[in-house]
Formats: sequence, structure tokens, C-alpha cells
Amino acid sequence: MAGHLLARTLSRDSFTDALGDEAFVRAMLAFESALAVSEAECGVIPEQAGKSIAAACASLDLPAGQLASEGKLGGSLAIPFVKALTEAVRKRDPKAASFVHYGSTSQDVLDTAMVLCIRPCVAETDRVLGDSVKRLAAHARAHASTVMLGRTMLQPAIPLTAGIKIARWASALNRCCGRVADAAGRALRVQLAGPVGTLDALGPQRAEVRRGVAKRLGIGEAASWQSHRDEWLAFACSLAILVATVGKMARDVALLSQPEVGEMLESAPKKGVGGSSAMPHKRNPVSCLQAIAAATRAPGLVATLLGANQEHERALGGWQGELAVLPDLLDTVGSAIEALERISAGLVVYPARMAQNLEALRGLVFSERLSRLLMQTMDRAAAQSLVDDWCTLAVAGDRHLKDIAAGARPELDIGRVFSLEAIVADLAPVLEEELACL
Amino acid sequence: MAGHLLARTLSRDSFTDALGDEAFVRAMLAFESALAVSEAECGVIPEQAGKSIAAACASLDLPAGQLASEGKLGGSLAIPFVKALTEAVRKRDPKAASFVHYGSTSQDVLDTAMVLCIRPCVAETDRVLGDSVKRLAAHARAHASTVMLGRTMLQPAIPLTAGIKIARWASALNRCCGRVADAAGRALRVQLAGPVGTLDALGPQRAEVRRGVAKRLGIGEAASWQSHRDEWLAFACSLAILVATVGKMARDVALLSQPEVGEMLESAPKKGVGGSSAMPHKRNPVSCLQAIAAATRAPGLVATLLGANQEHERALGGWQGELAVLPDLLDTVGSAIEALERISAGLVVYPARMAQNLEALRGLVFSERLSRLLMQTMDRAAAQSLVDDWCTLAVAGDRHLKDIAAGARPELDIGRVFSLEAIVADLAPVLEEELACL
Amino acid sequence: MAGHLLARTLSRDSFTDALGDEAFVRAMLAFESALAVSEAECGVIPEQAGKSIAAACASLDLPAGQLASEGKLGGSLAIPFVKALTEAVRKRDPKAASFVHYGSTSQDVLDTAMVLCIRPCVAETDRVLGDSVKRLAAHARAHASTVMLGRTMLQPAIPLTAGIKIARWASALNRCCGRVADAAGRALRVQLAGPVGTLDALGPQRAEVRRGVAKRLGIGEAASWQSHRDEWLAFACSLAILVATVGKMARDVALLSQPEVGEMLESAPKKGVGGSSAMPHKRNPVSCLQAIAAATRAPGLVATLLGANQEHERALGGWQGELAVLPDLLDTVGSAIEALERISAGLVVYPARMAQNLEALRGLVFSERLSRLLMQTMDRAAAQSLVDDWCTLAVAGDRHLKDIAAGARPELDIGRVFSLEAIVADLAPVLEEELACL
Amino acid sequence: MAGHLLARTLSRDSFTDALGDEAFVRAMLAFESALAVSEAECGVIPEQAGKSIAAACASLDLPAGQLASEGKLGGSLAIPFVKALTEAVRKRDPKAASFVHYGSTSQDVLDTAMVLCIRPCVAETDRVLGDSVKRLAAHARAHASTVMLGRTMLQPAIPLTAGIKIARWASALNRCCGRVADAAGRALRVQLAGPVGTLDALGPQRAEVRRGVAKRLGIGEAASWQSHRDEWLAFACSLAILVATVGKMARDVALLSQPEVGEMLESAPKKGVGGSSAMPHKRNPVSCLQAIAAATRAPGLVATLLGANQEHERALGGWQGELAVLPDLLDTVGSAIEALERISAGLVVYPARMAQNLEALRGLVFSERLSRLLMQTMDRAAAQSLVDDWCTLAVAGDRHLKDIAAGARPELDIGRVFSLEAIVADLAPVLEEELACL
Repeated sequence: MAGHLLARTLSRDSFTDALGDEAFVRAMLAFESALAVSEAECGVIPEQAGKSIAAACASLDLPAGQLASEGKLGGSLAIPFVKALTEAVRKRDPKAASFVHYGSTSQDVLDTAMVLCIRPCVAETDRVLGDSVKRLAAHARAHASTVMLGRTMLQPAIPLTAGIKIARWASALNRCCGRVADAAGRALRVQLAGPVGTLDALGPQRAEVRRGVAKRLGIGEAASWQSHRDEWLAFACSLAILVATVGKMARDVALLSQPEVGEMLESAPKKGVGGSSAMPHKRNPVSCLQAIAAATRAPGLVATLLGANQEHERALGGWQGELAVLPDLLDTVGSAIEALERISAGLVVYPARMAQNLEALRGLVFSERLSRLLMQTMDRAAAQSLVDDWCTLAVAGDRHLKDIAAGARPELDIGRVFSLEAIVADLAPVLEEELACL
Repeated sequence: MAGHLLARTLSRDSFTDALGDEAFVRAMLAFESALAVSEAECGVIPEQAGKSIAAACASLDLPAGQLASEGKLGGSLAIPFVKALTEAVRKRDPKAASFVHYGSTSQDVLDTAMVLCIRPCVAETDRVLGDSVKRLAAHARAHASTVMLGRTMLQPAIPLTAGIKIARWASALNRCCGRVADAAGRALRVQLAGPVGTLDALGPQRAEVRRGVAKRLGIGEAASWQSHRDEWLAFACSLAILVATVGKMARDVALLSQPEVGEMLESAPKKGVGGSSAMPHKRNPVSCLQAIAAATRAPGLVATLLGANQEHERALGGWQGELAVLPDLLDTVGSAIEALERISAGLVVYPARMAQNLEALRGLVFSERLSRLLMQTMDRAAAQSLVDDWCTLAVAGDRHLKDIAAGARPELDIGRVFSLEAIVADLAPVLEEELACL
Repeated sequence: MAGHLLARTLSRDSFTDALGDEAFVRAMLAFESALAVSEAECGVIPEQAGKSIAAACASLDLPAGQLASEGKLGGSLAIPFVKALTEAVRKRDPKAASFVHYGSTSQDVLDTAMVLCIRPCVAETDRVLGDSVKRLAAHARAHASTVMLGRTMLQPAIPLTAGIKIARWASALNRCCGRVADAAGRALRVQLAGPVGTLDALGPQRAEVRRGVAKRLGIGEAASWQSHRDEWLAFACSLAILVATVGKMARDVALLSQPEVGEMLESAPKKGVGGSSAMPHKRNPVSCLQAIAAATRAPGLVATLLGANQEHERALGGWQGELAVLPDLLDTVGSAIEALERISAGLVVYPARMAQNLEALRGLVFSERLSRLLMQTMDRAAAQSLVDDWCTLAVAGDRHLKDIAAGARPELDIGRVFSLEAIVADLAPVLEEELACL
Repeated sequence: MAGHLLARTLSRDSFTDALGDEAFVRAMLAFESALAVSEAECGVIPEQAGKSIAAACASLDLPAGQLASEGKLGGSLAIPFVKALTEAVRKRDPKAASFVHYGSTSQDVLDTAMVLCIRPCVAETDRVLGDSVKRLAAHARAHASTVMLGRTMLQPAIPLTAGIKIARWASALNRCCGRVADAAGRALRVQLAGPVGTLDALGPQRAEVRRGVAKRLGIGEAASWQSHRDEWLAFACSLAILVATVGKMARDVALLSQPEVGEMLESAPKKGVGGSSAMPHKRNPVSCLQAIAAATRAPGLVATLLGANQEHERALGGWQGELAVLPDLLDTVGSAIEALERISAGLVVYPARMAQNLEALRGLVFSERLSRLLMQTMDRAAAQSLVDDWCTLAVAGDRHLKDIAAGARPELDIGRVFSLEAIVADLAPVLEEELACL
């Protein structure tokens, strides 16, 4: 996968490895091995050929860079790869050389190798999501009674609890986890289809050989998906939605980490993490950065995949562009889950600052609650108008809305309107509903 | 929905209506009516207020254009809408005016109205997809024995049947149908959440009121999804994949409709359809055009949705941009299914041209089959090299590969290699596999 | 242009009109009129035909909606349009009817009409940009001495002046203004090319007729750009960059408008603007919202334009998709400049809050300046380490870095490090450099 | 730059090198060296420090991979880089260590290094474009008299010459060449701005130091562009338009290379180029593939750049995502120009097939010319209707339109309508106009 040095500064190492050159060549060899063995088992090729090819695949060490260069001549990495493998088999067992890649086509080995490389990334994504959701749920429970400002359009709205805010992140991530797993289950399947998806070289054995290859590789079976990429696209979309969801959380955390807000940090301050090359005092939210960069990149990559032309039985350029882009999308997933892992583990919540920011608004965010109280004795327009006037007074005189209201309407239970405990109690079922999904 | 005059030349009328101004205002009124009635039922607002609001909603006629203009002042269409509705209710029942939109927020009415407007589009999509898949399956069966060139990278590969090609379109569309239905089921739900998603004005009645609103509107329930749009995004992605799938089919048909290829037409030629303003002889594949234009537009729209920032409890600009874009995505769905409906109904297949295009390649596309035959007596490299030489001879001398091969190796059953009947028999299980999914 | 009711809540009315149905049909008529008159002038068609066609174009009133419906049959709005115009001319002068649209093709009238509709939008963009840049420059000068926190990665960095920050917005917008004007000059040209761009019906008169049409319509000339859209794309890109630039400014303002930051507002608070349907105290940054929504939408639209296939002499679907999308891009420009107009006019800067936010960091943002002072007597690593320790002390003890530093190194001119006046003086040339570009 | 093994199968080696790890680290060192020397020259740092730093930069060999890993901790590659460089300088000259990277910030070195790495790619793009345009112009002149079908909406329209078609490609590419050069000139400038773009550590010397650095690195000067990326975006857009333009040409060539069309090939058939792993007869248009894959990828990357948030003085995630994506965009440029280089050098035109495909339409594509001839004696509607009838007859009876017309109207000069020589003569000025721009 690699990518530019700067891109790699944002990547998750295990993803970089899983999608690296070596892993890809290994996956191509695994495909050819499974193919030969399955074909031998079904009597499509000689038994000895199957063994020789498998043995060659097991021991062959191919120079990836050279394959890429040679692949350009024929527009496919598979051509030099198959040639090199055939040579290696020939040295070992000249008769077997005829049966390398038998009945298959470039796209079979490339698509399947990509699937094999993506598989561990999906497993890791699943694990990290599972763990992170649990940790976030724990944060949510721990802050069930921490009242904070709800914010809409980057302005204070009405209060909610930090618990609810965090539980919603967890709940969305949990949905993403299921969505990725479902889509991966349908998309990460063997491609074994032959030149136009009909596997005709294998004739009546085609289904059995395909089943054998899938089983050996530990992935599902599928009819040719060479130019019908809908399951593949659905999988890519599920990844992009996950990245966007982590990005949303990261953006929330980063906004709350602004020192003027100061309500959360992605992790407790620690020397050497998030420092600046120029400013000693600086603590950058580097995990948020990593997640936001990923969320910035993913949508354009998905658009590329959705927009790639898929002419006839295999596309000209569309398919190749797709396979070049998919690893980049996985790279954003790696960044996103790494950031998620760190944020969910390190998240620090500052209830005191939350209370202070609420308080600083002099009760204005309770204006809706106040209106509702007033509506017990007047209609809404009148109530809102009255509250609006009180808000204006509060702002103008830098007074607390509660005091103005209590002064004007001593007969009402103004205290309850502004009580944080009352809010927590009111909102408990909302938190429960979010947590119940986990 | 509307859009520019030129965009509308590509739109499906029923979608244009479903997402038009009137329908949207009606949907907003339906939401407010359901809300008021449910709140009254749960004792949150007076029973009479519920009745009066519902009555006002049933009869109110609001000027959409004016709402849009006024909405700009507050950054939300809902503000002038609620104001106008409140006025209307006040005229009818002054006391009830206080309870219009009670406990709700702009996003509730806008999101839910969008859901209500999208719902009939989804139902229509489902119906058209169902019908079209059936028609394509019938075409596929009718052409089970029609051999045609498989084409990869816009070049002839090896033969398959027209039946298989068409069955794959049907099969992919069938998957899209299920995918859209699933995603719509999870995404098209009521938004009733209040200012920050906690519905606190409704207190302990929040769940019951929400259930009532959902039931009255005939849609599912959901916890607040105001700034967690993952289900919404998944739905949008399922639509874009559908559009891409129709686009793929349309591109295939358009390529096959090139007169030099001449293997399919999107519909039998008919005076007045697909004509040109300047060229009397011209018959343009206008349904393919419609589908391809849609497939051109959808990916960018999805990228916009995936990339929209969703800060805190409601985004600044991200959410508004999203709701402005989603109808455009639906518009592309309307175009795509309209094109699909016409193509699946009108598709004409020309078996004779398919045979002729195969034949014109002088047997070259059978070279792989020929190699396989030779491999019974020599190894693959030798076989391929021999066939390569024969291909060169065939091209140079404009002779048929079959004749050259038969001349060189009279002892082999060269005839079977080039027999279309043999191919059809060989490929029958491939067709069956695709059709079995439908 | 229109678009969904919700999209229109973000649109600039003059743009909506300029790209509306009526304007587009008028522009099509203007093209046909100019074409006929020019052809008559060059002797390509009879003089009387030119007059009759021009007269018909001047008075004709065509139902846009019906044209769109009929246009779908032929995949082009131009077909029913030319038919209707021909009928109208026939009624007036039967002989002239033969010469309507003579030598031209659908794309000529549609592309040119689009150009004509876009032209006033560009003029308005230019004017608004010019005015706004001037206003922002005035704000910048007014705040030449207002020190505020520079912020990187959403964290405080080191101070700059509000003047510099605003001047940079102005400077970038000024570059956008020039870029749009340049690109528009090259892109907004007549399309008069005939079916495949060769204008062969006009023969040797083709250049002269084209010159005449361009002159009559007040736009530039160009060789056929029917399927070579690079100038058109460059224009679209220049618009998207403008929208992104306004979006950047709006995001900055919105972030500074968070009450916890409170350093700027997009406009002085005013009753009825930016209110909330649910929260009486709320003042939303609605112009920022409008700009950010536009900036959210534009990139995907540009990607669509860049990705549209342009096969041969006219694309199948790519061109049509492009013309459907371009008005949406203009719509985002309208939103962006409207927001810009308001923000540049209404911008309020709060120097006291800027000072207060600086002060609240207890001098930490001066740490780099302090390191530099220390470097006069020690090496950088030692200086940074010392400052780092002092910063830790300051944070731990909630003391001001200045006091700690002055206590530790009374011999140094610590005061100057923390002097806002010194910073203003230091930064004056930076502001001058930005303003010099305007 | 690298990227996935499959992506590299499409890359241009010189671009891969230019944007590779080593080149980037070298560029970072070049920046630091130029900075130190310029600062020393201006008296900002000691003269000896400048020399020592330059010497260290000249000889230092940094392990890129390790920098990437360490960079993740601080969210920036520059942090470990500056640390390592400082260590190296310290070993050589302890006093100089304090002055490494003096006054600068992470973004300065990363942005400028990126500029330095992109510069040779731009130079190469310019050269390849220049050469390719010349070669295409030569092809165009060579085929000034080769009549071929013009095609619109993938259907035959009216004839033009191969010369015109090719000249238009050349002309568009020539515009792209100028556009990239202009944009590169404005965008590829030094970034030397310090933490918030004010270079305050350099004080009054800031302009002179910046000038010195720019001069030493051989690039232009600019005020801080750390979070105002408009010139950078304009440059990216100019690249994407170039890639789209090459993609358009490639798509045209690929469509004309379909054997049923057979009018062009991207290069003369040659053993080993464009072969298939499975089909010995296959000759894939691999340069077209390379160009189309690039054109598939570029739009999404540009959308990412346009959509990246640029908050305040430096973005959180937006900037980092941008720098991760830009090399991928350059990669598509490398692919595109490599494909262009090959296609422009190797292009083969088959005039006989062009004539044959024209002829196969039985004169139908001359119907417009025929209508014009008839219009000399009747009105257009009558003429078109007559021609329409004749076309129907021609299609039904498989007769040539010319014969039908000549039979029906022997008195007219039907021959000229169908004369290819006449068409060539008519179209000569059109070709001249295109070539005149080159």
C-alpha cells in the first residue's frame, strides 16, 4: 500500500503491511496454489502438476518492483507474475508448467489476491471497533450525569449529558461494525471466472474447482464478479461510512479540545505526543488529525470507485483504476481505526469545564425549558416573547436568566428549570436507549 | 426537486413530483399533524390543540417559494413554515397555536418530510427493478443459445452467450433491489428528536409520542439521527450503486449499439424517438444516454454526502448541504430506473450480427480453446506458441484459424473447438447459476 | 435552476433567476435569432428568413416544462425547442421555416444558452467579490493592531493580528476574482459548430457567421468545444476554488463565533436573523452556514464534470450530465457570494475577547518568543527545554509564564516578549504584504 | 509516492522516483540547508551555523520509514526529521544545533519539499506534452484528407476528417500545457512562513531570508499560503484537466480500436505488448488503459483537495489529507503523459477501414448534406421528410442512399453530396483553424 511518505505518517502499520508488496505477491501465490491443487483434485490437471505448482508457490520469492515494471507492458501485473511462476515451476517439474494459472485470467488472481489482503484488515477493523465501542460505552456510562452544552450549528443549543453524546458515537460505530461485517461477507469472495467469467476451460468441473479454491483460501464463493462490482462497491461504501463516522467523532472531540472550550481531550497530555516542531507549549490533537485526514480522503475515493466504467466482461481502465484506489480506501480505514482506538482509550472528559461553559451563558440555554414552564400559564408566543425579553435583559445586564425569571415570576418553580440534576433525570431514558443498541 | 431545465430533460416525472415543492410542504404538514395528534393522545398537549393543528395542516396551502426566501434569514425553511402554520392554527384556535411543532426542532420536520417524500420513490424503484429484472431474465432465457463475443478491455476475448451477459445484468440489479430495500428500511425513519436529540420537552412521553408519529406516518422509529447519518449514508450509497449498475448495463448496450457492432439496440427503431435535431438518419440510444448521465452524476453526490461535516448535535452547513443534495441523488435514481424500464422492455438482440462479428475474427477468439485441445498432446508453452503462430498466419493471410489448424493437425477434433453448439452446451450451467439468483 | 425547496433556501435569488427556465428559453431564442440574422447577413440564408426568425424569437413564449418532457424522447431539449420555433416561424413566414437552426445542432444552442445564462452570474460574482474584498481590506486595516491568537490544528499557536487574518481572506478572494474572470473569458464563448464541430452547412461562410453570432450575443468566439471541454472545466474549477475560499473564511468566522471563543460574529446580533425554531436564545451564523453548505457541495460537482466521459464528437450521457450539473455549481457560487457579501459587510470583531483568550493561556503562546530570547544566551535545545519546564510550571500552578520567566531571569527583557505592542510592530510588514496584493 | 503494487503497474517511473521517499527527504534537507544559509547570510543566525547545517544536510542519510513511524506521534513527519537533523548538526557543530529549522515550522519544510519534488514532474509534463502535441499535429496533417465518420452519442453522425479529430486532441492538449505551466508558476513557490504565517522569528529580515531561500531552491517567492491553498488548488485542477483530456483522447482511440470499428490503434501490433495472460490472440490497448485508469482516479482526488477544510492558520487533518493526496494526483499525471507519449508516437490510422465504415452506412451519414442540396428547391421540412423516406428505403432495401437519390432526382448534382474529395475540401479551413492554435 505504502503511498507517499506523508501519507504513511497517517497510516496504521498493520494495514500498510497487509496491503504491501510482499503480502500481495504472497496472496497471488496462494491463489495459484489453491487453484492448482483444486484443479488436480478435480482431475482437471494432473495430480503431480498440482503438487509441483503448490510447492513452487510455497517457496517462490518474486521481486515485486520488477513485476510492476514488466506489468506495464501488458497492462497487468498478472502477466509477468504468471510468467515468472511458470518458469519456477518449469525448473521444478517441466510438465507441470503447462498447468500454471490453468483456465484462469489476470483478473482472477488480482481480485482474489486483493480480497486475501483485505481480509486481515477487516478482521482487525472488527476487533478495534468492538473494543472501542465497549470503551466508549464505558465512558458514556461514567458520564451519565455529566451535563454539557448541546451544540447545533456550532452554537450552544440546550443541554444534554456527555454520556448521551458519547453513547451516540458508540452506537453509530456499532452500526458501522455490523455494516462492514455484512458487506465484507458478501464482497470478500473468490474471483475465479476465467477470461469472460465463464470458466470454460474447467468445463463441468468449474463449480467444484471454484468451491475447492474458496475453501482452501478460507473465503466465500461467488459467480463471476469481474465487471459487476456492486458487492465490492457496497463494501467500499461501508468502509467510507465507518471512516466518516470516526471523523465525525474526531471533529467533535477536536472542537471540544479547543482550549476556550476545554471540555474533552483525546488523551491526557503527555510529553512528546502531539508536540509541535516550533511551539513548545503546543499539544495537538493528533489522533483527531489522523481521523479527520482519513475522513477527508475517503469520499473522493468512493466516488472514484462508483464512477469507474465497467464495460462488457472486463473494463478498460475502470477496473484497473479501481484496484489502484481500493488500497487507499483501506489506508483511510487503518488511519481511522487507529485514531479511534487511541481516542476511545484515552478520552478525557472535563465535567468542570462543561459546567462552567454552561454557566457562562448565564442561563440562556435553559430558555426553552423556561418557555415550557411559562406555557403552563400562557400561550407559547407570549411565553417565548417573554423569555426572549428576559434573555435580552440577561445579555445586556450580564445577569443570570434564572435570577431575572425568578424575580419576575417568584410563584413558579424556576429552580427546577435550571437544575442539572433534573436534566440528568429527564435524560436518563435517552441514554438508556442509545446504550441498549450496543 | 426540479433542477435546471436541462436536468429535467433527464428526470422521471413521478420523482420530480414526489420531490417537488408541493409534496415537500405537504409532507411537512403531515409531520406536524402527526406530531400534534400523537402529543395530544399522550397528554403532552391538550386534545383540542391536537385536533385544531391537524385540521389546519389538512387544509393549509403554503406558498413554497416564499418560504424558501424567508427561510434564508434563519438558515432554515422550518422557521417560516412553523410561523405560517402557527398563524393558521391561531386563526382557527388561538389556544392551540402554542402547541404547534411542540417539543420539536427544524431538523425533525425537515428530515422526516424528506423521508416521506423519498418513500414513494423507493416503492417505485422497487417495483421497476422487480419488473425489469423479470424482463431481463426472460431476455436471458430467450438468448441462452445465442453465442456472442465476450469483450474485455474493449477488445474481443472469448465467446459467451448473450443470455449470460443479460442474466448478469439482471442478477446485479436484483442484488441492488434487495440492497436498496434493506437500506431504505433502516434509513427512512422518523426524525423526532428535539433541539439536541433528547426530545426533552416531551419528557417521559417521548418514546410513546415518537411511536405514535411513526405509526401515523407509516414509517419506522429511530433514536435521534440528527448528526449521526450513517444509515442515511448507507441508503444513499445503495442508491448510487443501483445507478452505477444501470449505467454499466446502459454502457454495454450503447457499445453494442454502435452500428459497426450492431449486436443490440435499446429498443426497436421508431420514428421520433432518439432522432437528432440536425441529422435525419440518426437514432440515438436515448435511454442509455439517460442512464449514463445519471451514472455520471451520482458518484459526486455520494462523495458530498459522505464528506459533509456533522459537528456536534447538528452540523453547520454539512446537514443543510446534505439535504440539498439528496434530492439530486434521487433524481439520478429516477433517471436510471426510467432508462432501465425502457431498455429492459425494448431490448433488441441481433444474433446474426453477433455470429458475424465472431466470424469476422477468423476464429482468433477460439485460440484459447484451441490451445487447450493442443495441450492434450504438448505442454502449454508449446501449445500457446503454436497457436500464436497460427494466429499470425491467419491474420497475415486473412484465413480462418480453424482451416489453418485443421490443415496442420488433421488428426484432432478441431471442429468441436469452433462449434457454437458446443460452446452453448458448455456454458449452460453458467447461465443457470446466474438465473438461479433471481 | 431551482433545485429542491431546501436547496433554494440556500440560493441567491438573482442566480436562481439567471439560471431559471425562462432565462434559459430566452437564451436559446437569442442564440437562434443571432444565428439566423448572421446567416442572412452572410448570404447563407435569405435575408427575409433572417428577419422572420428574429421576429419570431423576439416574441415567442415557450412552455419550458413541456419542452423538458418532450425533450426526453430525443434525449435533447433542443429537439422540441427547434420544432416549436420552426412552427412559430412557419406561421409567420412559411418560407423562413426551413432556415431555423440552419446548419446548427442541439449542442450549439444548449451550450451557448448556458453560456448566456452564466454570464450575468459571473458579472455579479465579479462585482460582489470586488466589493467584498474592499470591505474586508477595510476591516483588516481597522484591526491592524488587534492582536489575536493564531490557531493551528484547532489549537492556539502564536499570536498574529486580526488584520493579518482578515487581509489573507481578502487576498485569497482577490486572487479568486482574477482567476474566475480569466477562466470565464476563455470559457464563456459561443458554441457554433454543427453536428460534428465542422459547421459544414455554412461552408466558407462558417467563420464569418460564427463571428457574427458571437458579436451579436456579446461573447467571444471559439472553435468547436463540443467534446473538448477543458476551458469549461477550467472555468468550473475556478468557481469551485472560489467557493472553497469563501467556505474557508466562513469556517474561520464560525469557529471564532463559538461563544466560548467569541472573537468574531458574522454580523451584529439582530432580532429575527439566525434565530432558531425551537430555541429563543439562539443566534445561528446563517451566512456561514450558507457558505459552508456551498463549499460542501461544490467539490463533488467539479469531480462529476472532470469525470464525465467525452466520447468522440459528442458524448453519450457525459455531456448531458455535465449540463445538468453546471447550474448546481453556479448555485453554490450564488450561495457563497451572498454569504460573503453579508459577512464582509457585517463582520464584527471583538478585540477584548481576543485579548482575553490570549491572556487565558497564561502566556504559553509566547513560549516561542521566549525561547528566542533565551537563545541569545544558550542553545536552542536548552532554551526550549527550559521554556518547556516553565510552561509545565505555569500550567500546574496556574501562573503566568511571564511571571515565572521574569522571576527566573530578571536580567532579560522579558516584558518585550509578552508585549502586544511589540508584536503589532513586528507584524506590520506582514499585513502590508498581504494588503499590497489588493 | 509508491502506492500499491497494482497502482505502480500504471505509474511512470520517473514520477515514482521524483515523489519517492528518498527524493522527499532530500528535498526536506535542501529546504533546511537553503534556510540556514539564507539566515546566516542575513545575519539571523551565525555564519558558521549556516555552514554546519548546510554541510550536515548535504551528507545526511535519513531512514524515511522510521521518520514516518515517529512522525505519527506528533502528527507530522517534520518533527522527527528536525530532531534527527538537529542531532546530526550537533555532532558536527554543537553550537549550530540551535539554529536548525530556525524560525520555521513543520508546514514550511513539508510544503516546500512537496513543491521541490513536484517541480521535475511538471518539467517533464511540459516536455512530454510539447513533444506529443507536435507528433499529433503531424498525424493530423498526414490525415488531412482521410475522411472518417464523425460520431456523436456513440452513433455515426456526419463525416469529418481524421486530421480534424486528431488536431482537436492536439489543440486541447496544447491548451492544457499552457494551463499547467501557468498554474505551476503560481503554485510551486516556497513556503516559508513560520508557525502562523508571520515568520516572526526572523523579524525585519523575513522578506530577505525568504527571497534567499526561494532563490537558492530555484522557485518563486510567496506570502504564507499555509491555509490559503487557492493557487495550489488551481494547480491541482490544471493537472486534473490535463488527465481528463488525455483520457478523452484515449477513450476515443480505444473505441476506434474495437475490431468491429478498426479505424485506429494506439500502436502497431507488436509481440509482447498488450498481450493477455489467458488469450494468445488478444492485443489490449494498454496505453489507453493506463490513461483511462488515470482519468478515472483524478476527479475524486481533486474533489478531496477542494473539500479539505482549512481552519484558521493551519488545518487539522485537512492539510495533512491534502499532502497525502497530491502525490496520487501527480501519479495520475505520470500515467497520463506516459500513455500520451506512447499513443502520440505509435498511433496508427487505418484510412481504408474509415472509408469502409462510412460506406457500410449506405450513404445515410450524407443525409444532412443531401437535405441541404434539396433545400435549394424545396423547404427544409419537405427536404428532410424526403430524405427521411429515402433513408428508410435505403435501410429496408439495403441500397445506397446515393443511388436512391440519384434515381429520384437525376437532375441534381447528387455526386458532389457523396464525394469524399468535396468533403475534404470543405473541411480544410476547419483543420487549419485547429492547427493554427498549435
